Amino acid sequence: MSTEAEVPAPPAARKGRAGGRSARVALRAAPLAEDIRPVRPGMEGGAYKPLNEGDMRAIYEAALTALETIGIADAPETGVEYMVAAGSSYGEDKRLRFPRALVEHTLSIARKDLVLHAQDPNFDLDLSGHRVHFGTAGAAVHLVDVDEREYKDSTIDALYSAARVVDQMDNIHFFQRPMVARDILDNREMDLNTLYAALSGTRKHVGTSFVDPDYMHDGLELLHIVAGSEEAWHARPFASLSVTFVVPPMKFATESCQVMEVAIKGGMPILLLSAGQAGATAPAAIAGAVVQAVAECLGGLVYVNSIAPGHPAIFGPWPFVSDLRSGAMSGGSGEQAILSAAVGQMGKFLGLPTGSAAGMADAKLPDAQAGYEKGITNVMAGLAGINMVYESAGMHASLLGFCLESLIIDNDMLGQALRCVRGLEVTPEKLSLAVMEKTCLEGPGHYLGSDQTLNLMQSEYIYPTIGDRTSPKEWAEVDKPVLVETAQKRLRTILQGPKPDHIPAAVDAAVRDRFRIHFS
Amino acid sequence: MSTEAEVPAPPAARKGRAGGRSARVALRAAPLAEDIRPVRPGMEGGAYKPLNEGDMRAIYEAALTALETIGIADAPETGVEYMVAAGSSYGEDKRLRFPRALVEHTLSIARKDLVLHAQDPNFDLDLSGHRVHFGTAGAAVHLVDVDEREYKDSTIDALYSAARVVDQMDNIHFFQRPMVARDILDNREMDLNTLYAALSGTRKHVGTSFVDPDYMHDGLELLHIVAGSEEAWHARPFASLSVTFVVPPMKFATESCQVMEVAIKGGMPILLLSAGQAGATAPAAIAGAVVQAVAECLGGLVYVNSIAPGHPAIFGPWPFVSDLRSGAMSGGSGEQAILSAAVGQMGKFLGLPTGSAAGMADAKLPDAQAGYEKGITNVMAGLAGINMVYESAGMHASLLGFCLESLIIDNDMLGQALRCVRGLEVTPEKLSLAVMEKTCLEGPGHYLGSDQTLNLMQSEYIYPTIGDRTSPKEWAEVDKPVLVETAQKRLRTILQGPKPDHIPAAVDAAVRDRFRIHFS
Repeated sequence: MSTEAEVPAPPAARKGRAGGRSARVALRAAPLAEDIRPVRPGMEGGAYKPLNEGDMRAIYEAALTALETIGIADAPETGVEYMVAAGSSYGEDKRLRFPRALVEHTLSIARKDLVLHAQDPNFDLDLSGHRVHFGTAGAAVHLVDVDEREYKDSTIDALYSAARVVDQMDNIHFFQRPMVARDILDNREMDLNTLYAALSGTRKHVGTSFVDPDYMHDGLELLHIVAGSEEAWHARPFASLSVTFVVPPMKFATESCQVMEVAIKGGMPILLLSAGQAGATAPAAIAGAVVQAVAECLGGLVYVNSIAPGHPAIFGPWPFVSDLRSGAMSGGSGEQAILSAAVGQMGKFLGLPTGSAAGMADAKLPDAQAGYEKGITNVMAGLAGINMVYESAGMHASLLGFCLESLIIDNDMLGQALRCVRGLEVTPEKLSLAVMEKTCLEGPGHYLGSDQTLNLMQSEYIYPTIGDRTSPKEWAEVDKPVLVETAQKRLRTILQGPKPDHIPAAVDAAVRDRFRIHFS
Repeated sequence: MSTEAEVPAPPAARKGRAGGRSARVALRAAPLAEDIRPVRPGMEGGAYKPLNEGDMRAIYEAALTALETIGIADAPETGVEYMVAAGSSYGEDKRLRFPRALVEHTLSIARKDLVLHAQDPNFDLDLSGHRVHFGTAGAAVHLVDVDEREYKDSTIDALYSAARVVDQMDNIHFFQRPMVARDILDNREMDLNTLYAALSGTRKHVGTSFVDPDYMHDGLELLHIVAGSEEAWHARPFASLSVTFVVPPMKFATESCQVMEVAIKGGMPILLLSAGQAGATAPAAIAGAVVQAVAECLGGLVYVNSIAPGHPAIFGPWPFVSDLRSGAMSGGSGEQAILSAAVGQMGKFLGLPTGSAAGMADAKLPDAQAGYEKGITNVMAGLAGINMVYESAGMHASLLGFCLESLIIDNDMLGQALRCVRGLEVTPEKLSLAVMEKTCLEGPGHYLGSDQTLNLMQSEYIYPTIGDRTSPKEWAEVDKPVLVETAQKRLRTILQGPKPDHIPAAVDAAVRDRFRIHFS
């Protein structure tokens, strides 16, 4: 499964040591075995807890109160029927209100341990516990051209390219549609091409969206073809529906809910996405934005489980942040980092498979600002133990721009974040008293040549793929590489390489026969 | 005390609202009152806990065992006398060994609540609890020239400029010497000029180093002159000695210890700095590197308290990380982030004022890699509740290069990190049920115009000083600013502005009369 596991050369300081050479050559040649890779998908987070137990109870109570007293408006008729049958009340003000007992019952029957499948089972994602996975998402309308410093219209080809790149990035674990194929003017064709570009480009789990229940029916048909049969699709649904089922504050998105109903009946896992914006469509107080997002997603969870109890659903509170000077979104802010971590912690407090967003830089280009905005928000999401960290790679301009080069830069950033999520193992052996004693009392007074160092060099340490760790002298000798240019080279290598062929030619032909596909 | 507190304009969406204009104009004109600033020095961290209780006990036990069985070599004769008198044993192998009871006694008498003074009392730092402060440090030998993409020799003028810049940065709370004045060839003059450049450049707390006990005597004399008198210095010592008292593994740095003894007798606060490097001078296992650093710093704490019980000392485990492919240091790695956070947590577990290092980018220039390396390591150090986060701004090339422009970029990064450290307040008011109910049930269906939003706009949200949050359209309209160039402009404004005058002219003349000062 490893696509580009780094196999570092051994420490330079060991070079003089007799006898180890053939072992080192062997080490260099072999890919890292899965069990000693320093990081991998699904490492356990949770060491960062922005909320204490009392905070979480207070937020949950407030969310229950909001669902009971404010409720959620604008459910489609079908949704009203389902939810009233399940125990909601439907008021004269056309708002559905949810008694506490209904929410608690929903939590008891909701799907907890969830595996998100991938076309290649090696990329399946286990969303239990605090297992962390990073991936893309979004609906950027621009592709960032780093050479021209231009925001161009995003296209279906760019989307397919993004999927191909993600397929090759070790630390990006799933591919949700990150940008809009603006060159496809027919909405139905756009939705179907988006899904198929993702499925064709990567073997990893795919997330996508549909704007119309009718297109969703087509989408299921496409998924059946790719799976080989309807039964095969139901056995391993390898794509999920990201549905913004709510228009905050506290209104269902009527048509999206109708799309969701079709997906649920078609066995498609659901990401229940609530994307309020603190200070605009959610309270400006961070705690209030958490309450509203949790309330809305609990409402969505009632909806899903009133149709199909235990249906695979990801609890998706994605509250965003406003820069209150302009009212515009600020995805790279510290407030965003806290907000995502806190809603993630709430999702795990409720025992639910949970996704939220991080990595949404405000910076327009992959510069230092983009780096710290992405680094801070992603590592905090990971440390909080969010199962699915969406938007984590490639994003710029608070979700308006997507950059292929950034995917490659961000893959290194996510590797470091994953290393942080893994944390440190405190075992008798790793406490290292014996090696300390030997080194200090018997010589040589350093650890460069110790067996422990050689043994841990690959399993304890992760090395960047394109990140630069040269000394200033070496850096000058290699002509001072520019990070973005290094990323461009890697990007060209991937895109000029063979196209993915995990979808058999006959299946591809069947899809293209049935639907008008705009990329090749 | 606020030097550049940002006063944002109110939300654009509020513009149409009647009656608020004069209030908004007043808001814009006034600096932010201290009590409503969104972030400030000394916010309480601690929400991130890389180690659990059992881990911390195991590490502490291992450190005690290391001190008892391995001990620390190479103490100067004076140090041996002090520590043996306190209860250490001195072996035939010339290693001092520390019985558990001595370490425990030391912890009981060591200074816990420590205030680090500044020349201007408004910048005093309270190191109690998990209060977090970010600052500079290091001994870079290069100044990074971002225009030429060159690593040049660092100079005393650059050091003085760095102090002046830090003085103006809200989110950089202290100034420890970050680079070496390579243009001063005499070591005594270099040490004294380094101290005086820092003191002249900023009103904030200053940290520095001395390489010879003799120079340290001169340094104290200089500090007395700046303070106004020896008594005034002792009443508010506004500079601390950063002393690498140990050469890992487990050897005292003989001459540095002699410097330390002079400083202690001179009433100067001490940073007990242990800078092992995992995989080279410390175990490659992260947990082992933590054990060794904690053991060494506990040894140093015994040393300090055997001379002057309760002397102000900062517990300073600063273990670094090797890139084991080359043996070189990697300051920007995920392993470094964990290591710093873990030793910080250990320091607070022991109840000690604690400092460690973060922000040490491997990247040579302020690019995306520098951004994520600094962002990840700093926010984790802050969330772990480290009292003094050294190296947090300006550093590149794993401590070999220092960059003035990066100070300005990193100030924004640290603002976001501090916002994350602050976290979210879960209070009845901030849970926002009332405002949600009003907004959803009575209109207008959004929060842009709510009183809560206006009230929280400055106290709940921090705005970057040079960071860019424009939309792609606005960004194009303002000619696509380049972050590093914006930082350069700000840098020029500061350095072309008036020089700091907090040291009275007569005092300055007295210093220059007594010592040869190389900058003006």
